[in-house]
Amino acid sequence: MGSFKIRTDLALEARENAEEEAESLSGVSVEEVYHEDSEVRITKVSITSKNSARALGKPMGTYITLEAPAMTQQDENYHQEISGELSMQLRGIIPELEKESSILVVGLGNRDVTADALGPNVVDNLTVTRHMVKEFGKAAYGKERMHVTSALIPGVMAKTGMESAEIIKGVVEKTKPDAVIVIDALAARSIRRLNRTVQISDAGIHPGSGVGNNRNVITRESLGVPVIAIGVPTVVDAATIVNDAFAKLSGGEGREWMRMQDFPEGFSELYNMYVTGKDVDYEIKQISHIICDAIEGALDMQA
Amino acid sequence: MGSFKIRTDLALEARENAEEEAESLSGVSVEEVYHEDSEVRITKVSITSKNSARALGKPMGTYITLEAPAMTQQDENYHQEISGELSMQLRGIIPELEKESSILVVGLGNRDVTADALGPNVVDNLTVTRHMVKEFGKAAYGKERMHVTSALIPGVMAKTGMESAEIIKGVVEKTKPDAVIVIDALAARSIRRLNRTVQISDAGIHPGSGVGNNRNVITRESLGVPVIAIGVPTVVDAATIVNDAFAKLSGGEGREWMRMQDFPEGFSELYNMYVTGKDVDYEIKQISHIICDAIEGALDMQA
Amino acid sequence: MGSFKIRTDLALEARENAEEEAESLSGVSVEEVYHEDSEVRITKVSITSKNSARALGKPMGTYITLEAPAMTQQDENYHQEISGELSMQLRGIIPELEKESSILVVGLGNRDVTADALGPNVVDNLTVTRHMVKEFGKAAYGKERMHVTSALIPGVMAKTGMESAEIIKGVVEKTKPDAVIVIDALAARSIRRLNRTVQISDAGIHPGSGVGNNRNVITRESLGVPVIAIGVPTVVDAATIVNDAFAKLSGGEGREWMRMQDFPEGFSELYNMYVTGKDVDYEIKQISHIICDAIEGALDMQA
Amino acid sequence: MGSFKIRTDLALEARENAEEEAESLSGVSVEEVYHEDSEVRITKVSITSKNSARALGKPMGTYITLEAPAMTQQDENYHQEISGELSMQLRGIIPELEKESSILVVGLGNRDVTADALGPNVVDNLTVTRHMVKEFGKAAYGKERMHVTSALIPGVMAKTGMESAEIIKGVVEKTKPDAVIVIDALAARSIRRLNRTVQISDAGIHPGSGVGNNRNVITRESLGVPVIAIGVPTVVDAATIVNDAFAKLSGGEGREWMRMQDFPEGFSELYNMYVTGKDVDYEIKQISHIICDAIEGALDMQA
Repeated sequence: MGSFKIRTDLALEARENAEEEAESLSGVSVEEVYHEDSEVRITKVSITSKNSARALGKPMGTYITLEAPAMTQQDENYHQEISGELSMQLRGIIPELEKESSILVVGLGNRDVTADALGPNVVDNLTVTRHMVKEFGKAAYGKERMHVTSALIPGVMAKTGMESAEIIKGVVEKTKPDAVIVIDALAARSIRRLNRTVQISDAGIHPGSGVGNNRNVITRESLGVPVIAIGVPTVVDAATIVNDAFAKLSGGEGREWMRMQDFPEGFSELYNMYVTGKDVDYEIKQISHIICDAIEGALDMQA
Repeated sequence: MGSFKIRTDLALEARENAEEEAESLSGVSVEEVYHEDSEVRITKVSITSKNSARALGKPMGTYITLEAPAMTQQDENYHQEISGELSMQLRGIIPELEKESSILVVGLGNRDVTADALGPNVVDNLTVTRHMVKEFGKAAYGKERMHVTSALIPGVMAKTGMESAEIIKGVVEKTKPDAVIVIDALAARSIRRLNRTVQISDAGIHPGSGVGNNRNVITRESLGVPVIAIGVPTVVDAATIVNDAFAKLSGGEGREWMRMQDFPEGFSELYNMYVTGKDVDYEIKQISHIICDAIEGALDMQA
Repeated sequence: MGSFKIRTDLALEARENAEEEAESLSGVSVEEVYHEDSEVRITKVSITSKNSARALGKPMGTYITLEAPAMTQQDENYHQEISGELSMQLRGIIPELEKESSILVVGLGNRDVTADALGPNVVDNLTVTRHMVKEFGKAAYGKERMHVTSALIPGVMAKTGMESAEIIKGVVEKTKPDAVIVIDALAARSIRRLNRTVQISDAGIHPGSGVGNNRNVITRESLGVPVIAIGVPTVVDAATIVNDAFAKLSGGEGREWMRMQDFPEGFSELYNMYVTGKDVDYEIKQISHIICDAIEGALDMQA
Repeated sequence: MGSFKIRTDLALEARENAEEEAESLSGVSVEEVYHEDSEVRITKVSITSKNSARALGKPMGTYITLEAPAMTQQDENYHQEISGELSMQLRGIIPELEKESSILVVGLGNRDVTADALGPNVVDNLTVTRHMVKEFGKAAYGKERMHVTSALIPGVMAKTGMESAEIIKGVVEKTKPDAVIVIDALAARSIRRLNRTVQISDAGIHPGSGVGNNRNVITRESLGVPVIAIGVPTVVDAATIVNDAFAKLSGGEGREWMRMQDFPEGFSELYNMYVTGKDVDYEIKQISHIICDAIEGALDMQA
């Protein structure tokens, strides 16, 4: 307690942080696949006990992480390969896709802050079909069976005065989708993972997890339907950067953190600051297209 | 029936259209005030019977229209005068403002189409306070009593797959505001009224009114709380332009409309087309600020 | 003189208008190819004499028009087919592409008005390489020979206070490209052509052609290097719509125009108004991608 | 050499860094004024010798810094106070404003990266008059004498393939303004100064100053007309954050920097990363309006 808490939204990193103590941690399983030719690494972390959830600071559930160092390079074929892989992972984690489903896709975040605009950008590009199917039937698309999609950009609390969770819950109760996909920009611990990593999870969204604030969670429990979260780390907390640098200097490999009370005065100003790259606009644009294609592929919606 | 139906979202124009037959129309009252110095004309049309509502093609209610020919000229003082006038009118029509109220402001329309972006633009500029008051109390603003505001940009059906009415209803049920203000871009009949007119109404929003589609209305009845609509005509239907020109040429003053079956082939392509001005970006920006100031003024939220 | 002048930026339409009188017009040649399977029609109008240029109201030069009714439908393969066809046409019209060339791509228009944002949108998506090749050589792209690209969005005069032609000329003199490609949104006469037609021309850009204003042309003569114009009709003048409707009603097939002095009072307000469709945002986005791909294809820049 | 070089674009901070050694530095003069009521501090650093320029890493010239802790708070009156103060400072530093001048205002930066969009945002809001005065004379504004303004958003090299300096120089030579005002987002050293500080300078813009790259400077020498730079620190380099934290921990007050060779592996990834705040969109919007008002005020252009 009192010690500095590294923030990461990636279960993968949470497990790495906890690695030493957690070596024999029960209730956590990890599978890893590496595609040598595409340099894509897929890691599946399953957190299956409350103890391990507490230890990792992540809710129970399955977390699939795809890391692709070349994700934002300009290469249309590579993008298709990655979105194909993501489609496959999504098909595995969205429940009951063998039946016709109605899916609400939600883009969290602030469209006016580049690094936070991932969710809105994905939704801007997404094909929605619910209104057409309601009005004209599946015949409008020349199909006998199809999933239908709707989409929502709730906006951020500073601009709406409402929690995203409130808005989404209201819309879910009114429009009754079978499942919700939520896309959000995440904070990673490692700069190397920024805009090169996608996390898919069935654990939903827990803003400020561990803080005991359950009002704002977006989960199967809170919404009453399955929630699949797709996240991409686009920022690192400024405080994390400093702390990691300390750890490295002191010879640690990211395990011995400074205690907050040892931080010199003025350090607190690092809170509410984040670190991002200079090409963030280009990278977010590329990844938005990849994720949009992945969702449309998983739902067989591609033209 | 079968005759071309001029589209206007302005009650003022609906009454003008109906003028001749309606001379002795009961259930419609009109008051007009003209400020000579500012050239601002305020017209209040009250539709109080079902018969007159049917005759005018507008639901019962009060419609206040402010016309200001210089509305989009670059003159900060004039803008303040207009928004002050609008504030006063809003205070008269929003119920129970003598008590502390929670107001949800909704910006309808498509932020990616300039002439349709009025609603989103107003909301982008609006100060919201609900989340702060919930978290820190009114003390956060150094006030003992205040109205609180929240804001929503639901997006258009082509991008969400959902009716705006569904989204708004869901959010209203979840966040329980005392009243809803809805801002939308309208279609006028007269090009002269574009971007120079604001209509305030307590009748809510009835898209495609008269079509018998009640699913999509946004009204006190549908939401369970008072709905104040603020609209600005930013487009004219292309078909209206042609029809008006015909009427003028045939000597009519906009009363003798062509019947649709008389329209030559190819004319139907005018549907789903609209007419707008070349400075629409600048004008929408100016009016968005005026309406935003008017709402903040009516709710005593100005810094 | 005095008669209403239908405005069209398409040479194809100018020739249609002039068809009757011009049947035997010398100095104009027309070739047409129709691809039945893709429904793509390519028309090449060559204006080779001053007389015919005057008769058509278009400068001498070659005008290639591609019409594709399904251009904005959501079909990735069809888009590739169209951009492939455009690439081929561009390769035929950009001079000296067998040598390594430096190409400046200019996006004209106002990015804040949806129907006028085509040029800026294309440039936003375009890959530029000039700075990389200057800094690191062609090795940066693993190539031994390649064209290099630069790009400019000059903005509109109402926001810059300068003619686009002035800005472009300054930049051309300073950076010395071998050729300039200029992309602009055009006005068509026929609503059916909106967002379904691309015109490629080596005649450059002549805003308000015929008005005798030579200050603002963007041509080989004014810039000193070849200028290729790519244009897409995204609007129709409001006055044209009315006039066409008159002509149709009076039994003409678009040949007998009203004289302006016969227009009733109030008609003049149609000037500076334009007609556009309700899905203009989606359609402009689709076409921007097609044109961007076409340019990158023509210059062998695709990843 | 080899030692880590703290990056700051503020002359004020450069002088603070150099303070100890530089105490008796000749060729640097500093004046400071503090307005107690508004908490606005104005510091004027004059660098008048080559030696001191080298010592501070800033070109010779006058640097006026306005610091206002409440700059981004929502308070229209306070904003007017600050922009009034900035107007006064601008009038003092723009040469020959007693004559009618033609001023080109340039917004540097990337409009798609929130923290870098300051320059484009200011220009988007600015009133330009050059085209009107050229076409209709000063009578268009009802004035007998007035300055005229033009404006340019050149875009960033990654999107144009050209140096901003090349574009600006081309436009200056073609349109011949009497002076150029350049607005840019800066990097500060201290997080506390972000979005609360404005620097005005007659020394122009020197990207990567000290690197010996003179191709890209935007100065009176390079353009042939006076250049006034207006800058606001909106980011801190990520490496600076870490270094400052080290310095604080080691008891230094920001004077004893780590040498780069002592940085542990992986630290280099901090280059090309920057730190910014979570409300950067709101803050940039506020400051853009303040600077736009300040320029219009200095040039007597306000409506």
